[in-house]
Amino acid sequence: MLKEIESRRSIRKYLTRDVMDKQILNLIESARLAPSGDNTQPWNFIVVRSAAIKNALIAADHHQKWMKEAPVLLVCTADITCRRKDGPFHLDENSSEPELKQIIRDAAIAIENLLLEAEHDGLAACWTGWFDQKDVRPILGVPENQYVCGIIPIGYAAEAHPAPRPRRPLETMVYYDSWGNSIK
Amino acid sequence: MLKEIESRRSIRKYLTRDVMDKQILNLIESARLAPSGDNTQPWNFIVVRSAAIKNALIAADHHQKWMKEAPVLLVCTADITCRRKDGPFHLDENSSEPELKQIIRDAAIAIENLLLEAEHDGLAACWTGWFDQKDVRPILGVPENQYVCGIIPIGYAAEAHPAPRPRRPLETMVYYDSWGNSIK
Repeated sequence: MLKEIESRRSIRKYLTRDVMDKQILNLIESARLAPSGDNTQPWNFIVVRSAAIKNALIAADHHQKWMKEAPVLLVCTADITCRRKDGPFHLDENSSEPELKQIIRDAAIAIENLLLEAEHDGLAACWTGWFDQKDVRPILGVPENQYVCGIIPIGYAAEAHPAPRPRRPLETMVYYDSWGNSIK
Repeated sequence: MLKEIESRRSIRKYLTRDVMDKQILNLIESARLAPSGDNTQPWNFIVVRSAAIKNALIAADHHQKWMKEAPVLLVCTADITCRRKDGPFHLDENSSEPELKQIIRDAAIAIENLLLEAEHDGLAACWTGWFDQKDVRPILGVPENQYVCGIIPIGYAAEAHPAPRPRRPLETMVYYDSWGNSIK
């Protein structure tokens, strides 16, 4: 098993130690290399260090105060114009557009690369998404063609490697040839 | 950079060499360890080896004939009842449910783990998604609470490591503190 898949944890306590832009760009590079449907690469990233903007994002993200400790909040957006040029776009949690499902999927692939790369680099991160589009969008000036896929605190862990969260047993998620056929 | 992130490719030519169930279960194990919103773990997997079912899936997936060469098609579905118990569910490409966006995101995270683990294990794979829910669902008997997120051929590569597909330059996808602010 790839070591980083096993060892990665969602970390919610950070040291005050800073993370350099070079390190953040290396994480984004790992996302840049992700696969995407039709190679559309819908992802964009905003590296947030401004205390005022961090505070506003955290307030929009259900006031998760632990996020403040991280030196960087990395925001990932996904661009629907990779798939469909015609607007206006109304991208929110209740949108029905098929292309929105595709760009959310593709941005998620890229973010998982980034989380595994953070683990590889000895950094700590936690994907958060407890916000509404309407609250986050104006803080960052995100245009209407972008969907905000995650706000990811990045820093150095201030907690010892936590135990893994409980997972469903493997055998409950595997079928053979047809749904419901658990026995090979 | 994590080696597997750099070396992973979408492979569309496979040897006739078989892949053992043990290897497929190890891939699913990597998906099982993925993070998910509220640890909901919405993913399920169907390991398809039946020639008849493979052919039907490939027909539904835009007759991509190259898929036939792979010994296994791994189908990933995402379960909306991890998020919302009340049905009936109408999960298709045009659904507006916010929970559908969340489970597509979380299944995508798990599938990216699986693709990187395949690379780690010397296996070849390619995420495909050129199908409609209504076409794939009846082939496998997928219940209405599941959304089919991908059909992933898995095997051994019969092509030399292809060059990476072109990617957007890093600097086009990074902003600082606010959308549109490219200069640090």
